[in-house]
Amino acid sequence: MKVAAVQVDVKIGDIDHNLSQIVQLIAESRSQGAELIIFPECALTGYCFSDLNEARQFAQSIPGPATDLIVKALKEFGGYAIFGMLEPSADGVFNVAVLAGADGIIGVYRKIHLPGLGVDQFATYGDRPFEVYDVGDIRVGIAICYDSAFPESARTMMLQGADLIALPTNFPTGAENMTKHVMNTRAMENKLYFAAVNRVGEERGFRFIGETIVTDPDGNTITKASGTDEEILFFDVDPKESRNKRIVRVPGKHAIDRLADRRPEMYEQLIEPHSLPRPGRE
Amino acid sequence: MKVAAVQVDVKIGDIDHNLSQIVQLIAESRSQGAELIIFPECALTGYCFSDLNEARQFAQSIPGPATDLIVKALKEFGGYAIFGMLEPSADGVFNVAVLAGADGIIGVYRKIHLPGLGVDQFATYGDRPFEVYDVGDIRVGIAICYDSAFPESARTMMLQGADLIALPTNFPTGAENMTKHVMNTRAMENKLYFAAVNRVGEERGFRFIGETIVTDPDGNTITKASGTDEEILFFDVDPKESRNKRIVRVPGKHAIDRLADRRPEMYEQLIEPHSLPRPGRE
Repeated sequence: MKVAAVQVDVKIGDIDHNLSQIVQLIAESRSQGAELIIFPECALTGYCFSDLNEARQFAQSIPGPATDLIVKALKEFGGYAIFGMLEPSADGVFNVAVLAGADGIIGVYRKIHLPGLGVDQFATYGDRPFEVYDVGDIRVGIAICYDSAFPESARTMMLQGADLIALPTNFPTGAENMTKHVMNTRAMENKLYFAAVNRVGEERGFRFIGETIVTDPDGNTITKASGTDEEILFFDVDPKESRNKRIVRVPGKHAIDRLADRRPEMYEQLIEPHSLPRPGRE
Repeated sequence: MKVAAVQVDVKIGDIDHNLSQIVQLIAESRSQGAELIIFPECALTGYCFSDLNEARQFAQSIPGPATDLIVKALKEFGGYAIFGMLEPSADGVFNVAVLAGADGIIGVYRKIHLPGLGVDQFATYGDRPFEVYDVGDIRVGIAICYDSAFPESARTMMLQGADLIALPTNFPTGAENMTKHVMNTRAMENKLYFAAVNRVGEERGFRFIGETIVTDPDGNTITKASGTDEEILFFDVDPKESRNKRIVRVPGKHAIDRLADRRPEMYEQLIEPHSLPRPGRE
């Protein structure tokens, strides 16, 4: 399946602009044959809101006016899209990534790991586990930005059979090792495709570092964008590669298996609860 | 604390040679001020045995004649050492890494994740969880080679308070992304020091790729060896860096916490047992 990773700038608080940009880039990516089109985190809203009251103004229910327009575009042009936005929560907003197709909303992922940065400083913690969705002939897991720093995120979706993990992101200055090392590692350790789709540009003193990167089931980089330009990267996902977790280097001798070689009985500590104070939430 | 990562060649099946090499390199590393000296996987025995019967001849109880000589050297020269060897198991051998000091054996780690390669094809699966040990003023976790491809390994030791993870390894051709990306990621995601100490040379058609690498709590490379030469790399571990899991980029605003930001309630799937056949064990 051909997939597009769309690295763009976003105008904070200007949903009309960002929405028409998304619709136009869906049309363009479709004209080049992409079946799934992935946009950055908060591509509809922007990220660096000053406080919860400001952010609340740009949160929309799902489905709602903005997603209706995107679903309408997908009806017209075909394909699927994953894009970031804000969704109202009981006491604030969730930072979410939506998966939509011509028939409507397929899934809404609410960001689980929240850094003390931008809207995440006062967003509501994601309250549902990671999920994997059927998209055409592949299975797609969704996480957002900082989730990828926690190996448990991608691992959980690998265990649910993800062929591709789509990571809408807003990596800022300081996160360079994410695009230099972490996405290659996540793809390799889980033997799947990983697409970290970042934005470019600045918001209120924060610069986003671009470098949208797609890595393959061996951990190699398939394609990587610049640090500053708006670009669409296209890549192919071959589910045969991601579903066979075995690597045979010397037939009959040297073989490993990224899934079968796990020893879950040794991992009990990973699920022990903690009550440590979180930055900005103490 | 100053640590030495010793990248050497090893003679398969020649314990006398390998043992005197280890003793000599302990003396040399100590003369340059290292308090902890880390050797590769199977540094005492070699790795590519043809079958279990051959490997059994080189397994020694712990404590036993070989470790007695190493402990004697540590009594003479001071410091601590971590080195790989084979230990008899009920029905074969464990691939182990031993931590020893002047007063004797401190810990024996039995390799948990076994690839279908070398002695690991017929070694006994490690039967005890990952552990972390006090070594001078730092806490050291021990894993071996392929363990590092499973993020659960380092994570478990981070949760036990490791400042440094010592990874004696035998990375062969084909494992290049391990030294290119994975060690940086393990250090960064856990905010600790990670030392992957590989060997060089060949055994029965397998070449080992060297590239011993030490990474710091930000995921940057501190030092990296060549792919072919015997080398001792020295580095410092500052436990203040590994014990503070918080990163403050913009005071009062942008802060993350590698430990507190975890959401263990979302990781339940990671410990679900599986009964998948493993390469070479079907």
